[in-house]
Amino acid sequence: MCGIVGITDHREAARLTHLALFSQQHRGQESAGIAVAQGAVLRVHRAMGLVQDVLGGLDFTAFKGKAAVGHVRYSTAGGSLLENAQPLSMQGVRGAVAVAHNGNLVNAVELRQALERDGAIFQGTTDTEVILHLVARAPGTYEEAVATALQQCRGSFSLVFLVISEGRTRMIAVRDPWGFRPLVVGKLGRGMAFASETCALDMIGARFIRELEPGEMVVAESGRMSSSRPFRAERSAACVFEQVYFARPDSVVFGATVQAARTEMGRQLAQQMAGVKADAVVPVPDSGVHAALGFAAASGIPFQMGLIRNHYVGRTFIQPSQVMRELSVRMKLHPVREVLENRRVVLVDDSIVRGTTSRKIVRLLRRCRVKEVHLAISSPPIIGPCYYGIDTPAEDQLIAANKTNAEIAKFLGVESLTYLEQDRLLGAVRTAARRRPAPPDYCTACFSRDYPTDVPTVPLGRVGRTSLPVLAGGTA
Amino acid sequence: MCGIVGITDHREAARLTHLALFSQQHRGQESAGIAVAQGAVLRVHRAMGLVQDVLGGLDFTAFKGKAAVGHVRYSTAGGSLLENAQPLSMQGVRGAVAVAHNGNLVNAVELRQALERDGAIFQGTTDTEVILHLVARAPGTYEEAVATALQQCRGSFSLVFLVISEGRTRMIAVRDPWGFRPLVVGKLGRGMAFASETCALDMIGARFIRELEPGEMVVAESGRMSSSRPFRAERSAACVFEQVYFARPDSVVFGATVQAARTEMGRQLAQQMAGVKADAVVPVPDSGVHAALGFAAASGIPFQMGLIRNHYVGRTFIQPSQVMRELSVRMKLHPVREVLENRRVVLVDDSIVRGTTSRKIVRLLRRCRVKEVHLAISSPPIIGPCYYGIDTPAEDQLIAANKTNAEIAKFLGVESLTYLEQDRLLGAVRTAARRRPAPPDYCTACFSRDYPTDVPTVPLGRVGRTSLPVLAGGTA
Amino acid sequence: MCGIVGITDHREAARLTHLALFSQQHRGQESAGIAVAQGAVLRVHRAMGLVQDVLGGLDFTAFKGKAAVGHVRYSTAGGSLLENAQPLSMQGVRGAVAVAHNGNLVNAVELRQALERDGAIFQGTTDTEVILHLVARAPGTYEEAVATALQQCRGSFSLVFLVISEGRTRMIAVRDPWGFRPLVVGKLGRGMAFASETCALDMIGARFIRELEPGEMVVAESGRMSSSRPFRAERSAACVFEQVYFARPDSVVFGATVQAARTEMGRQLAQQMAGVKADAVVPVPDSGVHAALGFAAASGIPFQMGLIRNHYVGRTFIQPSQVMRELSVRMKLHPVREVLENRRVVLVDDSIVRGTTSRKIVRLLRRCRVKEVHLAISSPPIIGPCYYGIDTPAEDQLIAANKTNAEIAKFLGVESLTYLEQDRLLGAVRTAARRRPAPPDYCTACFSRDYPTDVPTVPLGRVGRTSLPVLAGGTA
Amino acid sequence: MCGIVGITDHREAARLTHLALFSQQHRGQESAGIAVAQGAVLRVHRAMGLVQDVLGGLDFTAFKGKAAVGHVRYSTAGGSLLENAQPLSMQGVRGAVAVAHNGNLVNAVELRQALERDGAIFQGTTDTEVILHLVARAPGTYEEAVATALQQCRGSFSLVFLVISEGRTRMIAVRDPWGFRPLVVGKLGRGMAFASETCALDMIGARFIRELEPGEMVVAESGRMSSSRPFRAERSAACVFEQVYFARPDSVVFGATVQAARTEMGRQLAQQMAGVKADAVVPVPDSGVHAALGFAAASGIPFQMGLIRNHYVGRTFIQPSQVMRELSVRMKLHPVREVLENRRVVLVDDSIVRGTTSRKIVRLLRRCRVKEVHLAISSPPIIGPCYYGIDTPAEDQLIAANKTNAEIAKFLGVESLTYLEQDRLLGAVRTAARRRPAPPDYCTACFSRDYPTDVPTVPLGRVGRTSLPVLAGGTA
Repeated sequence: MCGIVGITDHREAARLTHLALFSQQHRGQESAGIAVAQGAVLRVHRAMGLVQDVLGGLDFTAFKGKAAVGHVRYSTAGGSLLENAQPLSMQGVRGAVAVAHNGNLVNAVELRQALERDGAIFQGTTDTEVILHLVARAPGTYEEAVATALQQCRGSFSLVFLVISEGRTRMIAVRDPWGFRPLVVGKLGRGMAFASETCALDMIGARFIRELEPGEMVVAESGRMSSSRPFRAERSAACVFEQVYFARPDSVVFGATVQAARTEMGRQLAQQMAGVKADAVVPVPDSGVHAALGFAAASGIPFQMGLIRNHYVGRTFIQPSQVMRELSVRMKLHPVREVLENRRVVLVDDSIVRGTTSRKIVRLLRRCRVKEVHLAISSPPIIGPCYYGIDTPAEDQLIAANKTNAEIAKFLGVESLTYLEQDRLLGAVRTAARRRPAPPDYCTACFSRDYPTDVPTVPLGRVGRTSLPVLAGGTA
Repeated sequence: MCGIVGITDHREAARLTHLALFSQQHRGQESAGIAVAQGAVLRVHRAMGLVQDVLGGLDFTAFKGKAAVGHVRYSTAGGSLLENAQPLSMQGVRGAVAVAHNGNLVNAVELRQALERDGAIFQGTTDTEVILHLVARAPGTYEEAVATALQQCRGSFSLVFLVISEGRTRMIAVRDPWGFRPLVVGKLGRGMAFASETCALDMIGARFIRELEPGEMVVAESGRMSSSRPFRAERSAACVFEQVYFARPDSVVFGATVQAARTEMGRQLAQQMAGVKADAVVPVPDSGVHAALGFAAASGIPFQMGLIRNHYVGRTFIQPSQVMRELSVRMKLHPVREVLENRRVVLVDDSIVRGTTSRKIVRLLRRCRVKEVHLAISSPPIIGPCYYGIDTPAEDQLIAANKTNAEIAKFLGVESLTYLEQDRLLGAVRTAARRRPAPPDYCTACFSRDYPTDVPTVPLGRVGRTSLPVLAGGTA
Repeated sequence: MCGIVGITDHREAARLTHLALFSQQHRGQESAGIAVAQGAVLRVHRAMGLVQDVLGGLDFTAFKGKAAVGHVRYSTAGGSLLENAQPLSMQGVRGAVAVAHNGNLVNAVELRQALERDGAIFQGTTDTEVILHLVARAPGTYEEAVATALQQCRGSFSLVFLVISEGRTRMIAVRDPWGFRPLVVGKLGRGMAFASETCALDMIGARFIRELEPGEMVVAESGRMSSSRPFRAERSAACVFEQVYFARPDSVVFGATVQAARTEMGRQLAQQMAGVKADAVVPVPDSGVHAALGFAAASGIPFQMGLIRNHYVGRTFIQPSQVMRELSVRMKLHPVREVLENRRVVLVDDSIVRGTTSRKIVRLLRRCRVKEVHLAISSPPIIGPCYYGIDTPAEDQLIAANKTNAEIAKFLGVESLTYLEQDRLLGAVRTAARRRPAPPDYCTACFSRDYPTDVPTVPLGRVGRTSLPVLAGGTA
Repeated sequence: MCGIVGITDHREAARLTHLALFSQQHRGQESAGIAVAQGAVLRVHRAMGLVQDVLGGLDFTAFKGKAAVGHVRYSTAGGSLLENAQPLSMQGVRGAVAVAHNGNLVNAVELRQALERDGAIFQGTTDTEVILHLVARAPGTYEEAVATALQQCRGSFSLVFLVISEGRTRMIAVRDPWGFRPLVVGKLGRGMAFASETCALDMIGARFIRELEPGEMVVAESGRMSSSRPFRAERSAACVFEQVYFARPDSVVFGATVQAARTEMGRQLAQQMAGVKADAVVPVPDSGVHAALGFAAASGIPFQMGLIRNHYVGRTFIQPSQVMRELSVRMKLHPVREVLENRRVVLVDDSIVRGTTSRKIVRLLRRCRVKEVHLAISSPPIIGPCYYGIDTPAEDQLIAANKTNAEIAKFLGVESLTYLEQDRLLGAVRTAARRRPAPPDYCTACFSRDYPTDVPTVPLGRVGRTSLPVLAGGTA
């Protein structure tokens, strides 16, 4: 999971990249970075941490330049290393390139091994570095080289390249032929803005133009944009989990406003659960709020904030001692006794992965003497790992791949458990899409194991950890 | 505005104080601190910053001890100095004392000047240091000294003293005779827990016993608790703003669950605005959420999350350049176009102070082409400054003290503006109080200028800034 | 051991104080701080660490003002706490005061206990805070109050007070009647500069005027200086250890250039050891260099740098594991095999306290197969603790108080051990004094146990640690 | 200028590497780093800063492993970037490699351009990265690949490679055929230790075996060492500046103890200046101390420490304001007036580059009213830049390349200026070499412009700055 940004032909390119990354912080909290074109030189800054930690204190007077790319990262393949923080950059005979990547290649291991046999040197463990090497070795102009390189790649890639070559500065934005991950383009003054989500365009005042098509390559230079289609796939496969959980509610993703899609999922869930007797619909904040509002509207059961989220919880909280462990679950979510005591509640969340967090939340409600908990999940059971950029665990860790619905309900301690049916989910997403005549086909592999591509034989998440001797780094 | 904690007779006193402070972070983000009794020695740690910054990395093995007090501070009187961070501590001939204070004395300047004339040395600029000096100079046991000292103090004080004297460790908790600020006590294993709000008791697994009475002094030692009433006032004056805005929704304050009180305020507001034509009720998150839910339930107008709050916004965000300034308002709140465009909305917030923030929010909505904005405020107009611990500005800064309702509506750019009437507010709070036979009289001075005490002639907020030559400090 | 600075009537008072502290860094490495008079306000910054760590990054534009005091501290009495870092400051009815103190009171415990009985509050554990309380409680002007307060103090105190009162800013510099610690005054443009050592005056380009007399109080204001003598003692007692070890070689202390005094100590030592057969005179760098040069000149034995000091060793070096421990002694001093192998050397150092360091150095030489080591110490055996500001350990830790010369030589593993006789030491210091008609009487208590004052019954070094319940603090 | 370390077959390889780097801190203060072999994985840590800053706080339990290499760097070619910090590492099809490099290639630009044309990607701007790419692309085993790669390199390279391949961990140490930079090997328990200087072996308790021969390649594995000679040059060219200035006095370099070589340079200088009338020989500390001792011994003029060096000066000192600038020179060196006033001194230093520092030092002496300054330099005039790793500026910055001796003396403000003649310098170094039958031929190019290799047409120091568009980075 990552967020990417590209800005061209704007005097405040670096600052706007900072803001656009900030608005996409939910797409990755592990590292952040920026690369700016300064004449013939790329200036890069990246570090582990949140956008504000990494870029908030930056001296932007040293990052002047009219084009920039940026990245926020949450590790999928590749470990948690500074060497893996993006944008990655390189210097080649044709010039300098920086790249920001959202996605995951399924043939990264094979590509890397071939490159290593041919004398390539790797600094980190990401598939993005594989892409850079392929580009460096492909002939022709940088546009040609990018197309040639990516034709060898299978899997998900939404990419923004910042290219300095032959005295010109260009941006090349590319989306894989399946269209797994989002990528949008907008108009920003006399320049262009690329981003994973429209919320980033809104933040910087750019006007949304359109989503890149699956398999499309766009080159932006001097405020002009040219498009080509160097990649083809049999069908599109937009990630439905972006709608369910990952994207920000105010973004428009794959033609649908996420907030509307989630509200509609809640409505569908209410129809599916027609007849449930309950006193309140309570969301798990913040991820379940919109579906719970839809559920409440459709069912007539009142919506109530029975759980308050603590927004001061950071990721650095040091684990308290053994005695304290039981208390730690109370730090993030606070139950409101008045709403819960002696009440029957429909608890709404977006998904269940391992089940351990849901179980703790149910226990919190039980401590307030809730009478019944009917758990309503606004997506189908997750039964397969994602190879396209969502950090789901291996199959043996997925509770729905290993237990029946009844067993899961028992494990969680709830009176009933309902997952939204896949057809209803896709119907909800279709209903929410209003601006676009033909909504894309969706990838539902995590719910159906129907993978749109071959899947890796060497597990992707393991590359760089156990299968090969590799470089493990870390720099203060 | 501050939050205080006291723990007695528990092996994990320091860690539990940390957790209890964390759950009261909303009461103060400027500094945090803790004091632990270790045998005959007080060990103190305090610094500027959030609870997790100050205490998250603490080596708690060096803070062993069975009794502790803690504090989070948002400056009111006194400046933003490390010297003002609490708990304050002192060493006297009777032993050692640490104290955590929530509140504000209205006669602090007079008391301090008298003490200085008598040779007292001050390190910081808070009224809490005045209290410590009065205690040090009062005769008798520490209990007697605390009572004697506080009998000279007017204004608001909820205090927890940690006292080591004559080989014994005790805790003295005190609430001023008006009962401005909350202070509750709970049972925690074989010991006791004191806190500003019940949410802190919930966090650490303490069982709520009761609120301290206005004017009550409680001494806790070896798991036992004794009570006395050394202070008297003509009437109680619980701060109604704790219900409107300040306390956490899951806390029980002055006998009412805050969430219920706010929902009821929303209901009352809907009754007051009966007949408003609107398509959606939209809260300003997070402060307006509960009132908006009440409003929606009472009016039948659908509740919608038309504004998304960005929870990554920290206080350290560096102001971008002139060009960027306009963008900065978009960093905290994100409008959802789908909910707003061409719609008539009731926008619900808790209060208006200067009006500048509300104005920016309305503009955000206008950019999404909202059709009508009916602003509903769940409290009356603020027309007077608070002298009892809420950091409201001087009268000339309060928009409602200087403009008519129509002028304010025009300034904000809304179709209509409605403040909840004071009687309805007090009625809502009374309705929400269920556990307690006699709800307290409330202080409504900020809405009515009906101050329960004399008010300072030297403005309290200015002490230590302009009226006297003082110590300004700051330590890394 | 501490270093103090005061600057008056100079636009760059804070920066010059910084530089003057930097040049006195050898007098204390634990904490540093500065206080500046800004109109009617004192602005203070102090923290644990070296001068450059604490003040090197300071925004001096926020520390404008024409008068400042500064302090570097190495703890003696009082623990290693931020609360003990100086300058200390206070706000009283007469105005604001900051103070920097070099020295140690022998009656601090008695004074503190009396103050506590009278309602005084203490923040830290230093005797300097006692002085502040005495000043706050004494009647009259600040000059009168300082004199009255210090008349109650016994022991060593060189003090610089920065006083803001009645719209005027003054500096009061005081030296105790025995004159234990140095304190000099110089002319700096239109203002004055006070410092512990003349090297600080040299650093900032101030012209040395003279040393303050024992028992003298100087008030500096608007470039003028007035003097009085409020304190009397039977005799002067300048600390001879300043000459032996503590002061910087280029300073003039008590009328003598330290470098000249140390060279003369080496000459005297050579006379005392006339007849020693050796191939080289080798100093323990840096403390033994000047005495070794004097020894070589007087004896005709060649001076050689047989030990190289590593200047990158900081105080923060983390102890390596058990296997590494033996190696750690090699980190600070590097023997030069060429100089040592098969040679007879006179090893020159300034003093021996516990003997453990000397023993390790001798072992380093032995590893290079040195033939003979004749250890020459440029001061007499240390047999008594210092109560006047030098951080010597208790008597049972002093090797010379517990072993004969032969036993010490055996413990250290040297062929011979010679201490400079006390008469020769005092003679050397007298010889080096050229500018001053009457050199002071010296305190030699650590060599002779002839203490110029009563000594504390409660050991001073223990105050605030075990004898009383106290405040132990620590703030990030 | 850099220092390198390699440790094999020792359980504490990382800690010992840390200590050995610490002892070579004088060879580079810009960055430090370490790479450890952990099974099949390399673990790397590197950062900007001193050894103690970078490695002092490292959790060595996470750096277990029996082989390690380390590096300290002062930039020559390549800029001051984290990307340039070493050890550099790579992952290839044959396994993983980390390398530490001391030296500078003269054909780095040509090699890099050819590699880029062939699709190689560069992260930083050092020639060491060029070497890694050449190794990755050369066929055969890693030993064969290293030999093949380095046969293409001209210039100076002392290298230690840590290689993990085919389940084995080996170390490959190489010295260029001219032998510009030192590289020694010692026995350490059952393993081996490589280092730039013998002082590093002394620090960790390794027994010095011998210097690597020019053009030698040593492979160490399982405590055994095999040697080969894959590179040839017409003559050896050991850097004489290592003896003059760069190496630590207690090291044995190119067969001579540095301290002895410098003392002998001072003797030769005294002979050359026979007849000079002076009262004292004063070194510029620390670099001139040994030559000054030799001068004093040979001339009979007394040695005196007329300048005291301040060892608290770090590199981070923030430049004070305009008013302060004149004072800043006094921060590092403190003149001792007693030694200088009205005296004729021979001031001894090791070399003059631009002349600006020497001029400031002379001014310091003049302020103390020194009577005459006879400046004696223990090396010839520097007239040519170094292309082999010493960071000398371009010719137009070298004072001796642009002015006559008389002009320089006038510029510096000295009564006379004497440079040691080149024959005397080489004679001194030869005299000091005692352990080795045939001392090497020395490179004296900076004194004679007699370069042992072709010199770069593109100035090496400029690579990566102006001639090419490049990556400029910087990561927190």
